[in-house]
Amino acid sequence: MSTDWQSIAAAKRAERDAKLPQEWRLDASFLKDVNESSDVSVMHVPRTCGLLSEDDIALTENYDATALLDELASGQIKAIDVATAFCKRAAIAHQLTGCLTEMMFDQALERAKMLDEYMSKEGKALGPLHGLPISLKLTIVLGYDVKGVASTIGFVSFISRGLAKQNATIVDILLELGAVVFVKTNLPQTLMTADSENNIYGRVLNPHRLNLTAGGSSGGEGALIALRGSLLGVGTDIAGSVRIPALCDAIYGFKPTANRVPYTGQTSPARPGAFPIAPCCGPLATSVRDLGLFLKNAIGDDPWARDEAAVGGPWREVPPVPRGKTLRIGLFVEEKATYPVHPVALRALQTATKALEAAGHAVVPIPDDAVPSIAATLKLSWQYFTMDPKKTAVGHVAASGEPFIKSIATMRHPELADWAPGLDDVYGLNVQRRMTQKAWKDVIVREGLDAILMPTYQGSPPPHDMYGLPPYTVLANLLDYPAAALPFLKADKKLDEPYVRDVKYTPPYNKEAMEGGPCGVQVMGKPMKDEELMRIIEVVDAVLKKAS
Amino acid sequence: MSTDWQSIAAAKRAERDAKLPQEWRLDASFLKDVNESSDVSVMHVPRTCGLLSEDDIALTENYDATALLDELASGQIKAIDVATAFCKRAAIAHQLTGCLTEMMFDQALERAKMLDEYMSKEGKALGPLHGLPISLKLTIVLGYDVKGVASTIGFVSFISRGLAKQNATIVDILLELGAVVFVKTNLPQTLMTADSENNIYGRVLNPHRLNLTAGGSSGGEGALIALRGSLLGVGTDIAGSVRIPALCDAIYGFKPTANRVPYTGQTSPARPGAFPIAPCCGPLATSVRDLGLFLKNAIGDDPWARDEAAVGGPWREVPPVPRGKTLRIGLFVEEKATYPVHPVALRALQTATKALEAAGHAVVPIPDDAVPSIAATLKLSWQYFTMDPKKTAVGHVAASGEPFIKSIATMRHPELADWAPGLDDVYGLNVQRRMTQKAWKDVIVREGLDAILMPTYQGSPPPHDMYGLPPYTVLANLLDYPAAALPFLKADKKLDEPYVRDVKYTPPYNKEAMEGGPCGVQVMGKPMKDEELMRIIEVVDAVLKKAS
Repeated sequence: MSTDWQSIAAAKRAERDAKLPQEWRLDASFLKDVNESSDVSVMHVPRTCGLLSEDDIALTENYDATALLDELASGQIKAIDVATAFCKRAAIAHQLTGCLTEMMFDQALERAKMLDEYMSKEGKALGPLHGLPISLKLTIVLGYDVKGVASTIGFVSFISRGLAKQNATIVDILLELGAVVFVKTNLPQTLMTADSENNIYGRVLNPHRLNLTAGGSSGGEGALIALRGSLLGVGTDIAGSVRIPALCDAIYGFKPTANRVPYTGQTSPARPGAFPIAPCCGPLATSVRDLGLFLKNAIGDDPWARDEAAVGGPWREVPPVPRGKTLRIGLFVEEKATYPVHPVALRALQTATKALEAAGHAVVPIPDDAVPSIAATLKLSWQYFTMDPKKTAVGHVAASGEPFIKSIATMRHPELADWAPGLDDVYGLNVQRRMTQKAWKDVIVREGLDAILMPTYQGSPPPHDMYGLPPYTVLANLLDYPAAALPFLKADKKLDEPYVRDVKYTPPYNKEAMEGGPCGVQVMGKPMKDEELMRIIEVVDAVLKKAS
Repeated sequence: MSTDWQSIAAAKRAERDAKLPQEWRLDASFLKDVNESSDVSVMHVPRTCGLLSEDDIALTENYDATALLDELASGQIKAIDVATAFCKRAAIAHQLTGCLTEMMFDQALERAKMLDEYMSKEGKALGPLHGLPISLKLTIVLGYDVKGVASTIGFVSFISRGLAKQNATIVDILLELGAVVFVKTNLPQTLMTADSENNIYGRVLNPHRLNLTAGGSSGGEGALIALRGSLLGVGTDIAGSVRIPALCDAIYGFKPTANRVPYTGQTSPARPGAFPIAPCCGPLATSVRDLGLFLKNAIGDDPWARDEAAVGGPWREVPPVPRGKTLRIGLFVEEKATYPVHPVALRALQTATKALEAAGHAVVPIPDDAVPSIAATLKLSWQYFTMDPKKTAVGHVAASGEPFIKSIATMRHPELADWAPGLDDVYGLNVQRRMTQKAWKDVIVREGLDAILMPTYQGSPPPHDMYGLPPYTVLANLLDYPAAALPFLKADKKLDEPYVRDVKYTPPYNKEAMEGGPCGVQVMGKPMKDEELMRIIEVVDAVLKKAS
């Protein structure tokens, strides 16, 4: 019996691969350009590969989750047909991008059948998520309910932990509401990089252009949902891990205020007891309203009853922003000296600003000196993330002898190489965090802002392993504000030309390599006002759609 | 110019004493037994001393704050009369118990006059707290608005800091709503003991029996409100500091969930950036409903707009518990092996249980093994409180050369004498805290409990400097649950006799020394459900009143 990490990882990978039904395998012709150096898009393949029926295509392309649930609840369409279509399409997406770590197709189809039987017997849906296939990031533990699927989270050393005994809380919630869990999705080793690669399951490719990063750490979700192999996925976000793949793959992502959505029971790379920035469980989706669909159902009436840390209270019904009401949106374009935005991101923010103003909303620039520097905020966040004296996540890598994936090197904060903090240092970090929270709160209150429009990232997705540190997403984690990533525009070297400036872009701006990559904007709300932010991004997204 | 700490403290004390109007000084006959060894009660003195007019007595005795505000708002009574009566009565209370650190009588009367003028000009109250005198614990900083009153919080070394420049947030809120700030109240050196004594302002005595502790750290509030020198006081609580004086002085106290009531701008003995147990700002009052009056107004519609840490959301209107509805109250009598309750506390809890059951409510004992030990929870809390490597509060004492007050020695956890934790240790503490939160949440959810009835303390107030560590109040701080202290029964050696057991009481049970001291019960709610807990304690208090 071999115990080298390669064999252990290969065996685990083979377990996954064996679950891919023969009849859903793509013809080799569709796979010849599928590799991480290829500059092709595979967005068209699911529709053209011949594996999906007309009905499969209609079921996976003509609805968002909300609309699909309406049809399922009315009995117009059957859960088994929906599950079949999404299982097939997820299998296709996986072959194109490497997005899946587990395929639970048999269980999903069985459950769908059960739901159809329930519907025909009871004459009503099992719950508000009746028959909706939902994909789960690999961190989200599945226990006995789905016959034990291990959550390795990509560490080879975790493989020997075997099967989970208990569902993560969010899984119990989704199943009780009638959802169909059908796949788990890929992520990066340690979860602390935006390149979703690990030594068990390999790398996730960006379906819009395979040689670009799909983002991370919820990168499998990003690629899967972009290809409509799932309409609603559950990710986690402690520095941008929901919003980064949303940007990279041109879908929607929402990082709630910490501990609004129950997080307990997930597998974490971090040391138990890590503090004070908490990972958040949040949705990735193909429409704005599906983000709200997830949040409303995941949070429910009493999240604390399921999770001792979930003290944000019930989901509150907030009415839509009335037609004609003027929103006041703060605008934070960039910190030019440290992380200037790429041409496409500048174009996206300026186009969005004009469109919002044209729609009657006020866009209020946030002065540079009103808030602490983005670089300082990033560094502070990274101090919190790396202060564990035991370097727990590094230990999880070392335990099996597996090497670090390449992008880990890009995620080390340059000023923290020799930083070895003690308890004494934490007090100063906490004061700095509090001052940062105060500065942002003060400007929001002073200017009467409803939300803040800002970049999700400096630009569109760069080539693999070049994403680097995420200054514009980690801000909302440090502040503990909710924030959403909305897709908007694509890198287009001609259209972007007027936005090129003589600044030091990080990562470098490479118009050829990045051409065609999705861009987007981020909208950050106020803490615990996730409900209000949902209503605001409905408005912003509608404006952006008209301006696209 | 002398700089020894005694002279500095004496000068500061003289500043305070000079503010006591000659005409409000008690005749020596009323003061002859006023000292910390005296076993007399002074509860009758305000009424009998001759300094208060019939009207003064009526204004200070016939109303709680809610009722008084009704009269003020309707113009039936004038703010100046109310302010005068409470200033006089507070002055009397101070001479009997040492409860005040600042007397701002001139400013209070001036403000009351302004409020009366506003009322007569505008025909309406300035706000929902129009004309209500509110007392403030010494931590609560007053800035320019009241012409600068320094918050030394009892450290001699803080005297040289001079006057504050800005109000604590809670002061701004109260003033905007029409309150009259008139006194600040005494507390213990370091705030981490239940005996409210310091080297500047001396010791607070218990008005029910002067040789018993008045409790702390909001002990000045306890004694002042017990004597009705104030109807509503603002305290703070990180281990019991609102609830302990409520118990000792037979009044009502409420510790909200942390960061519900804005806390910013207060002077703290702790190191900036201290974590993770946060101090809470909470009310002390003469009626249950006045606790809610404070909470509703202090929290308001958008506490976060005033305090970046206040993310608990607005005060929610929750209807009263419907008549006839059965509450399910968990019962946690004691941890017998470590902190058995004194006879009076056992009698209080058993009497309360019977009365609640007789009123139709279900009282559900919480099994010992359902939750971590109280001793372990106390130790964990004390680990958090003492983990600052800089020992900041100790430094504040040492800085002036003043000695520790006597009771500090009783507040050192015996197992932590040589404990010098590092950052590494914090992770384990956090895990232990989380497991404690989970265990309590699980039992509450499993048993469907609305709240938990438990002791506030092992017994009634002991003699000075014997209170010791507060196992039953710090629990709610560690859990971050709201909790209220309700007065109920008094130590009575005859009635308590049947409740005496052969156990090791801590502090020792001394039936003669403790005779006549107030007792009470604690009711602990669910996190962020402060509104629901308010409604529950209305019901419990009504039941207790009938059973008294």
